[in-house]
Amino acid sequence: MRISELSRTTGVPIPTIKYYLRQGLLPGGTPSAPNQAAYDDGHVRRLGLIRTLREIGGVPIERLRAVFSAIEDDRLSRHELFGIVDRARTDASPPLHVQDDPGDARAEVDAFLAELGWDVRREAAGRQTLADALIALRRLGRSYGTEVFRPYADAADRMAAWEVNAIPVTDTPAVAVERMVVGTVVFGVVLDALRRLAHEHHSAHAKADAATTGDES
Amino acid sequence: MRISELSRTTGVPIPTIKYYLRQGLLPGGTPSAPNQAAYDDGHVRRLGLIRTLREIGGVPIERLRAVFSAIEDDRLSRHELFGIVDRARTDASPPLHVQDDPGDARAEVDAFLAELGWDVRREAAGRQTLADALIALRRLGRSYGTEVFRPYADAADRMAAWEVNAIPVTDTPAVAVERMVVGTVVFGVVLDALRRLAHEHHSAHAKADAATTGDES
Repeated sequence: MRISELSRTTGVPIPTIKYYLRQGLLPGGTPSAPNQAAYDDGHVRRLGLIRTLREIGGVPIERLRAVFSAIEDDRLSRHELFGIVDRARTDASPPLHVQDDPGDARAEVDAFLAELGWDVRREAAGRQTLADALIALRRLGRSYGTEVFRPYADAADRMAAWEVNAIPVTDTPAVAVERMVVGTVVFGVVLDALRRLAHEHHSAHAKADAATTGDES
Repeated sequence: MRISELSRTTGVPIPTIKYYLRQGLLPGGTPSAPNQAAYDDGHVRRLGLIRTLREIGGVPIERLRAVFSAIEDDRLSRHELFGIVDRARTDASPPLHVQDDPGDARAEVDAFLAELGWDVRREAAGRQTLADALIALRRLGRSYGTEVFRPYADAADRMAAWEVNAIPVTDTPAVAVERMVVGTVVFGVVLDALRRLAHEHHSAHAKADAATTGDES
């Protein structure tokens, strides 16, 4: 298909497609005539992935390159691919600006993950995120330890086990990365939305339970 | 304590404290001398909550007012308080910019939540978030239905049940709202970080399992 049809099919404006081509985020089409190139379903799929990463995941343009390079690198293991997706998303998440750590929260988090037996990189961003969360909780005046993470770790462990197992080992790297990204980014948003809806649902029940204690007076 | 001690205790600069006082986010101290006021532990606690909401949750100043008004409104039920916390955080989350819905994803999401029997407001932001996620998944070329949400809904349901039940019905509204906010904002960040770490852990195992199929060649 021509670039005009690629634009109609995907809903991505032609200037934006040309920008992605210049940035190397979208592979060039097959030359079909002077100043013309033919695009195929691979381009449609890639544009859909770019839109999802940018619009849903908030992943900046310069990070997309790392994800797409990983897709084209056959030597990377699944484990390494997940690390790249993790880093791409980390930049998109709001950073935790916790400056001061009166204790050594990071060491506690590292010990907690070791105790769980989780095989994660020393430099995985999530370690510091957990340490920052612990510092923030303590700043609110509670004597929290890493044990407050355990129910969430158990839930995350169960979810990740079936999310990872849902990716067939026979997938090509491109398809596997797409599944990982969709799983990590889109279902992260889904889980957050469902958790908030569930809070509202359960607090409605708590309200009914509490009615006899004077809530409704 | 004087404003200078309040600043030292909380790590919040005096000009920032004065800004919060002017904005009505921090109640005034008790007048103790001309141009002086005395502050107490309630002020320390409120400043800690403001920092957590802003730094961890990314909640903008103008939204904090709604949360603090709710704290001071004894007539609000737990259910209504949760709704206010939900809205405060929604503005802080990256919006999903999904313009076009070829089907009627929102109606499907509403039917799904009705089927779950969840008691949530028609205007709860999470409904549209789920609809947008569904549209994004379909744009990637998969024929997803709301049933893909079910495992996440089950996990969210279990977590929310014990999160809401962890708030004693005897809590004052101020303490209950603080617990809700911490639970929603901080543990939302914690859950997201743990899920990504668990992905990395489980993909390491998937890599080991896949080694015999040629991953390591």
